[in-house]
Amino acid sequence: MTTVGILGGGQLARMLSLSGAPLGLRFLTMDTVADACAGQFAPLLVGDYRDEAALADFAGRVDVATFDFENVPAESAEWLAARVPVFPNPRALAIAQDRLAEKTLFRELGIPVPAFAALSSREELDAALQEVGIPAILKTRRLGYDGKGQFRIKSAADVDAAWQALGPQAQTVGLILEAFVPFERELSVVAIRARDGEFRTWPLTENWHVDGVLSASLAPATASPAVEQAAIEYARLLAEKTGYVGVFALELFCRDGELLANEMAPRVHNSGHWTIEGAETSQFENHLRAVLGLPLGDTGMIGHACMLNWIGHMPEATAVLGQPGGHWHDYGKQGREGRKVGHATLRADAPATLAEGLRKVGAQLDRQAQVAPVIARLGG
Amino acid sequence: MTTVGILGGGQLARMLSLSGAPLGLRFLTMDTVADACAGQFAPLLVGDYRDEAALADFAGRVDVATFDFENVPAESAEWLAARVPVFPNPRALAIAQDRLAEKTLFRELGIPVPAFAALSSREELDAALQEVGIPAILKTRRLGYDGKGQFRIKSAADVDAAWQALGPQAQTVGLILEAFVPFERELSVVAIRARDGEFRTWPLTENWHVDGVLSASLAPATASPAVEQAAIEYARLLAEKTGYVGVFALELFCRDGELLANEMAPRVHNSGHWTIEGAETSQFENHLRAVLGLPLGDTGMIGHACMLNWIGHMPEATAVLGQPGGHWHDYGKQGREGRKVGHATLRADAPATLAEGLRKVGAQLDRQAQVAPVIARLGG
Ligand SMILES: Nc1ncnc2c1ncn2[C@@H]1O[C@H](COP(=O)(O)OP(=O)(O)OP(=O)(O)O)[C@@H](O)[C@H]1O
Ligand SMILES: Nc1ncnc2c1ncn2[C@@H]1O[C@H](COP(=O)(O)OP(=O)(O)OP(=O)(O)O)[C@@H](O)[C@H]1O
Repeated sequence: MTTVGILGGGQLARMLSLSGAPLGLRFLTMDTVADACAGQFAPLLVGDYRDEAALADFAGRVDVATFDFENVPAESAEWLAARVPVFPNPRALAIAQDRLAEKTLFRELGIPVPAFAALSSREELDAALQEVGIPAILKTRRLGYDGKGQFRIKSAADVDAAWQALGPQAQTVGLILEAFVPFERELSVVAIRARDGEFRTWPLTENWHVDGVLSASLAPATASPAVEQAAIEYARLLAEKTGYVGVFALELFCRDGELLANEMAPRVHNSGHWTIEGAETSQFENHLRAVLGLPLGDTGMIGHACMLNWIGHMPEATAVLGQPGGHWHDYGKQGREGRKVGHATLRADAPATLAEGLRKVGAQLDRQAQVAPVIARLGG
Repeated sequence: MTTVGILGGGQLARMLSLSGAPLGLRFLTMDTVADACAGQFAPLLVGDYRDEAALADFAGRVDVATFDFENVPAESAEWLAARVPVFPNPRALAIAQDRLAEKTLFRELGIPVPAFAALSSREELDAALQEVGIPAILKTRRLGYDGKGQFRIKSAADVDAAWQALGPQAQTVGLILEAFVPFERELSVVAIRARDGEFRTWPLTENWHVDGVLSASLAPATASPAVEQAAIEYARLLAEKTGYVGVFALELFCRDGELLANEMAPRVHNSGHWTIEGAETSQFENHLRAVLGLPLGDTGMIGHACMLNWIGHMPEATAVLGQPGGHWHDYGKQGREGRKVGHATLRADAPATLAEGLRKVGAQLDRQAQVAPVIARLGG
């Protein structure tokens, strides 16, 4: 009997546990809060990731450890890795936690990135703006998620406000300025690397964000073979360079058929949730297979899939459950503004059927704006 | 937050819980043993189904109740149904628990059945043999499962041994004699009826048994439209007559293009396990949708699927996980002779690919005999 430990007890841990049960696995999740939603289906240890006693308890009860939460302190991951196998390895995690380290690595590997510059003072911000240009986005280097810790500088008039908003964090989590990319679309490649080095990707996904938070994903994305090959190659370079084991997502901006890397998420990713129903093997099951040294599952698609995120509160389930390929994912969380509480996936054999389903769901839930860009992309 | 209570905590309860988590459901399972495998992913109440205090505790903690175990005493189901909604209804459960009541109902509804006769003494057995003929099968009326409580009478010489084996149960669970059907194939139709009466079936499944226990299932079965329509019609008649809500399976013998009903299982069924990967909506999720009054999910197939049962102990997972459409289901049980401990499902878009996968799995696990009939049926 193998027990997989998961640091972080959110929806990713929950979906990992549910998908790992058929493999005969047991789970132990760890989270700082007692009502973490993974705890509804797997034992939950409540503790601080920096608390060595809690970590030791965790380490003593698991055979291997992985992450639901990418911002587990790198030192905690290191401490743990000295006691149990940890995948992905703490070095890969540390890189992905720091936008500067990440973008520096991208550049090193020849993966195109928007212009960027690290900074730690108001003077350095001015210098960075000279280098990067305007429009730009000021971001915290660490601990950002769902578009939090970001300030968009559209013109010189915004610079003071940007510094006021994020300047105080310059000494704690660090800051980075990035050129704003007027992208045509956002793509992600969800990839997996096995312990033995085998590398696979799911089909490219197109993503739509609203206020910095993922709103919808469509797979397979319609991309030229050149774009698709480049995306896969970038992911492979990253996985090999970092000795990565498990699932990760590489988020990319696409403009004029060129890709620019935005960031790497060192875990199963929201843009891969559609794989539960839309792929032969889900990102969740495959992550566990990789972590355990089992053969990787087929990442091929089954038709076409669109994932819609539910933020803040769950809409009426029947609108989705009433569609032929409609699948529901309620994370069992309390509703709260801005919180990811669930998602739906629509699956169909043909793009036109998928568009039709999205149209119905959009109308029934009065969420036309959420489905509209996906329907447009499907040619609907 | 809705809590679904499940009487019985075996693999069916386990798969129900896992498939219901994404619907935002919580579960409470009840079983007589503390290590019931559903307890690994859902709270488990240990108690006897006849213990009113335990049942009251259970009833107080759930919003609706259903079954993993079909032999929950009918009176316990009735007692519970007076307190919480119970699906399927206790009357339907009671009929399905008794081979005589079941076959009598089949006959009433015009569903063809093998000749049968109830009996409770050695003299009545002789009379029944006159009526039904030899070869025949002597079975307990109640509490049989996986071919247990059956004795095959191939010639008059077997009658004494049959009586010796099962006679003692004539006064407790009752006995029934059935004509032995020299069937060409066994089929099952896994069906679902919603609270509002909507009725659906998954594609017909062909089943192979070894020593009375399901060994392999293949879907879709290759059956003539007439056979398929008859099977669906029989299931519909049964569902409507019993006011059934939820999933059930109707097991059928097929001979010369004619169907004879064997039995009805009032729950999700082993011959429907392939629906997890091979259908748009699994029998487990759809059972919960029905029980909760949610819209039923699409029961359409995704390609072709074969389920292989693992009895006694789990084989090496890698043989299955290494196949493109290979999916693994370890129920987390202790191995024990004759015990259903897990299954595998192979899914493929084309029959030939499925046959090829089965060939490889059979060879790698040295289980050629288990896969051979399925491969033959696939024309491989
Ligand atoms: N340089 C940029 N140019 C244009 N848009 C950007 C840029 N950086 C971020 N964005 C927009 O904001 C979104 C979120 O940004 P980013 O991925 O950096 O933040 P995050 O907080 O790490 O988000 P996530 O939780 O989705 O990973 C991006 O998907 C994109 O839509
Ligand atoms: N009348 C019959 N003629 C021929 N074979 C039979 C007959 N009855 C049972 N069998 C064989 O034995 C198997 C198990 O029988 P049956 O379904 O009655 O038992 P069970 O213990 O209720 O099984 P299960 O757990 O599969 O429902 C059948 O699937 C079939 O292969």
